[in-house]
Amino acid sequence: MNVTGLLLLIEAAAIVSCIPFSIFYSDEALVPLIITALVTSSAGFLLWFFNRGSARDTLGKREGYVIVSASWVIFSFFGALPFYLSLESISFTDAFFETMSGFTTTGATILGDVASLPLGLLYWRAFTHWLGGMGIIVLSLAILPLLGIGGMQLFVAEVPGVTKDKLHPRIKETAKRLWGLYILLTVVQTAFLMAGGMNLHESLCHAYATTATGGFSTRNGGMMEFSPYIQYVTVVFMFLAGANFTLHYYLLKGKLKTIWSNDEFRFYLFLVLTATTFITIGLINKGELGIEPSFRHAVFQVVSIMTTTGFVSDDYLLWPGSLWFILFMLMFVGGSAGSTGGGIKVVRHLLLLRNSRLELRRLVHPMAVIPVRLNRKAVSETVIYKVTAFFLIYAFTVVTGTFILTLFGIDFQTSIGAVAASIGNIGPGIGMVGSIYNYGFLPDVVKWILSFLMLLGRLELFTVLILFSPSFWKN
Amino acid sequence: MNVTGLLLLIEAAAIVSCIPFSIFYSDEALVPLIITALVTSSAGFLLWFFNRGSARDTLGKREGYVIVSASWVIFSFFGALPFYLSLESISFTDAFFETMSGFTTTGATILGDVASLPLGLLYWRAFTHWLGGMGIIVLSLAILPLLGIGGMQLFVAEVPGVTKDKLHPRIKETAKRLWGLYILLTVVQTAFLMAGGMNLHESLCHAYATTATGGFSTRNGGMMEFSPYIQYVTVVFMFLAGANFTLHYYLLKGKLKTIWSNDEFRFYLFLVLTATTFITIGLINKGELGIEPSFRHAVFQVVSIMTTTGFVSDDYLLWPGSLWFILFMLMFVGGSAGSTGGGIKVVRHLLLLRNSRLELRRLVHPMAVIPVRLNRKAVSETVIYKVTAFFLIYAFTVVTGTFILTLFGIDFQTSIGAVAASIGNIGPGIGMVGSIYNYGFLPDVVKWILSFLMLLGRLELFTVLILFSPSFWKN
Repeated sequence: MNVTGLLLLIEAAAIVSCIPFSIFYSDEALVPLIITALVTSSAGFLLWFFNRGSARDTLGKREGYVIVSASWVIFSFFGALPFYLSLESISFTDAFFETMSGFTTTGATILGDVASLPLGLLYWRAFTHWLGGMGIIVLSLAILPLLGIGGMQLFVAEVPGVTKDKLHPRIKETAKRLWGLYILLTVVQTAFLMAGGMNLHESLCHAYATTATGGFSTRNGGMMEFSPYIQYVTVVFMFLAGANFTLHYYLLKGKLKTIWSNDEFRFYLFLVLTATTFITIGLINKGELGIEPSFRHAVFQVVSIMTTTGFVSDDYLLWPGSLWFILFMLMFVGGSAGSTGGGIKVVRHLLLLRNSRLELRRLVHPMAVIPVRLNRKAVSETVIYKVTAFFLIYAFTVVTGTFILTLFGIDFQTSIGAVAASIGNIGPGIGMVGSIYNYGFLPDVVKWILSFLMLLGRLELFTVLILFSPSFWKN
Repeated sequence: MNVTGLLLLIEAAAIVSCIPFSIFYSDEALVPLIITALVTSSAGFLLWFFNRGSARDTLGKREGYVIVSASWVIFSFFGALPFYLSLESISFTDAFFETMSGFTTTGATILGDVASLPLGLLYWRAFTHWLGGMGIIVLSLAILPLLGIGGMQLFVAEVPGVTKDKLHPRIKETAKRLWGLYILLTVVQTAFLMAGGMNLHESLCHAYATTATGGFSTRNGGMMEFSPYIQYVTVVFMFLAGANFTLHYYLLKGKLKTIWSNDEFRFYLFLVLTATTFITIGLINKGELGIEPSFRHAVFQVVSIMTTTGFVSDDYLLWPGSLWFILFMLMFVGGSAGSTGGGIKVVRHLLLLRNSRLELRRLVHPMAVIPVRLNRKAVSETVIYKVTAFFLIYAFTVVTGTFILTLFGIDFQTSIGAVAASIGNIGPGIGMVGSIYNYGFLPDVVKWILSFLMLLGRLELFTVLILFSPSFWKN
């Protein structure tokens, strides 16, 4: 509870940082933001004050699991207040959905008309992405590997300067480096966007949403309303945000060979290029767009969906069925491990593909031990096991979620689209929650279910599901 | 080639057995049947004659794989002749699709108006199911376990009188017993159907299609055209055909306890009952049907789809979305292992569900060895490994297949429906290939792709895929 108190104080500080925008634009979100900051900091202070006795160093594994899931939920409850207090027409369900969607870097919105929102509130909305992304970077590269979630330990083997047995120094050191990169990416993108004629507010909001692979925009038409230059800049930074952040070190140090020898990165690039080529040809064939716009929308949507950002540069549901089906499949691929992207992750697909191919070799040579290799090293069976379990639980959750949504009379495509886009932390799905639509029309219960799915997907399933396992609570 | 020759002679004999019906009803299929019998037996005799030197006993694993896949393809080529020669409007693609659909016990048809077909031909059509089912029983309970395909060795551990090291006696002995049961089921069902007023021809055709979980009917409206009595009888026999055939022994011997202690059977029953209850309530709620018809159509469609038979008693696509979505999900469950049903199989789902649940326990106790249990015995990691690989390759094939179909301009629902219904050996899918429609309108290439998927699904994926693995062909 000590930790949660401190986290709430951080959230309060984050809310305070939105206030200057509200003052500058003298909008109606000022008072709600101030109230939220006060409420959040008071709650945080009280939690910290009454628990300051309990030593932080004794944090066990179980407490770790609980704090991780609880943080996102508690953050969303407090973070929903500015929406709830600023907007008359919004229910608390909607406000919570929007905030959870922000903190999980999903980007699914219940707001049809974002352009009319107070600019201070829009800034907070984008900032929830950024904070969520920051949390995820640390979670996926420092905490989850230690907890052994879904084979994640694999993906950080190459983080420089990591020692396995020391929790504190490791998290601190890793977090510092990664956040430095994260901030650098955001700053550079903001500069590039401003160079393209965006003002500071919009540049920051879109840079936050990009670096965190979130997807909230400040415009009703999203990225459709911006110039090709802005769209291309966004593609580059979405691609970077969807790559393993440890690779960014190597990029900065000029070690391109090391990046190139990373199997996941190569597969990530391969998928982006293949899907882009395919969709570009399809769009050119369709004949409505020229070569450049076809390529631009293809690469934009492929990178946006695959990195689970969810920005929209063109209404992809109007594309031929085979083209949006590619995007729909990419929803299940997701970003790289150790990126801010969600979904199943590129490396898991790579491992499973390799394992499936080897399974045939194993049939031919039943006595031979044929391990899956990643970055030239043999991957242990336990990891493959965890990865397949992850994949299966993911699939099972999508199917069950889709079924539950159809119970509310929602059609099949919308149901599977909403579920895939929520658990994958993408944002726009297919059907009635596709490209240019929003989640506002869904029943309240469905919004809570989807909020849960966002959390589930964002925290790599096991982190959340383990809380529902009886053996977790036994001593 | 020796074996293939003998198999072709068997097929010729099967075709000859259809001739009496053609003579009795003096229909136009008589000459085509005779020609096919002559062509097939000549081909079979030649193959046998020129290969009689090669000893049968030296059949290796590799030859085994090749013969299994080749048999279904060669059988379908020759078996397509009666369709091709009898019907003026049919292309060879269509005839092949129909026959492959028959031999793989799928039951997907390209024929819109089956009622107008020559009765001798209809008899052959149903008979392809029956022969295919016979092949599958032996394959899944005697041959695949020996080859170690997809963890199948697990499911026959309890076959009485099986010795592991002797191939020949085992296959022979097991095959004899199973075929006895298979014939018994067919005869008893035929009697029950005739008692309900069906004539011998229709009773036999439907009994063949039921025992093999095929699904070809002799009526345009399928099972909708028959009485509730006939429908209930069919439900019972579909259920039996979808259960592990080794359990039928125990049924005959009155060992009900042994059946009840079989985990797969209990899960199979559980799924049928749950889905039926759910759909019955849904249909009653909809208000168009009374309680009895609601229950009848619910149990009929649940058992029909889950056992991958594919008979239709009501146009389920007109049901509320959540109800047909249950059926759609059941398409991926399939029958029990060691039954004539296709799909992923109940036991694989059971193992994966249990493994996923245990994965959470393993997270809590990372050092403990926690094996999955089936029928109170620990299941080896290798088997779980094979089962997950099977599941993943199945999912991957469905996604890829769906994508390929959308390339032909076929809509998403029809594409995924056709692919799921083909690889699962079900027959009717959703969308334009749903309940009351047929596959006739699809482009030729798509029909060949779906034929391939039927074969792939029927032969448990690996049996076919291994033929495409380079290491298989290396010495």
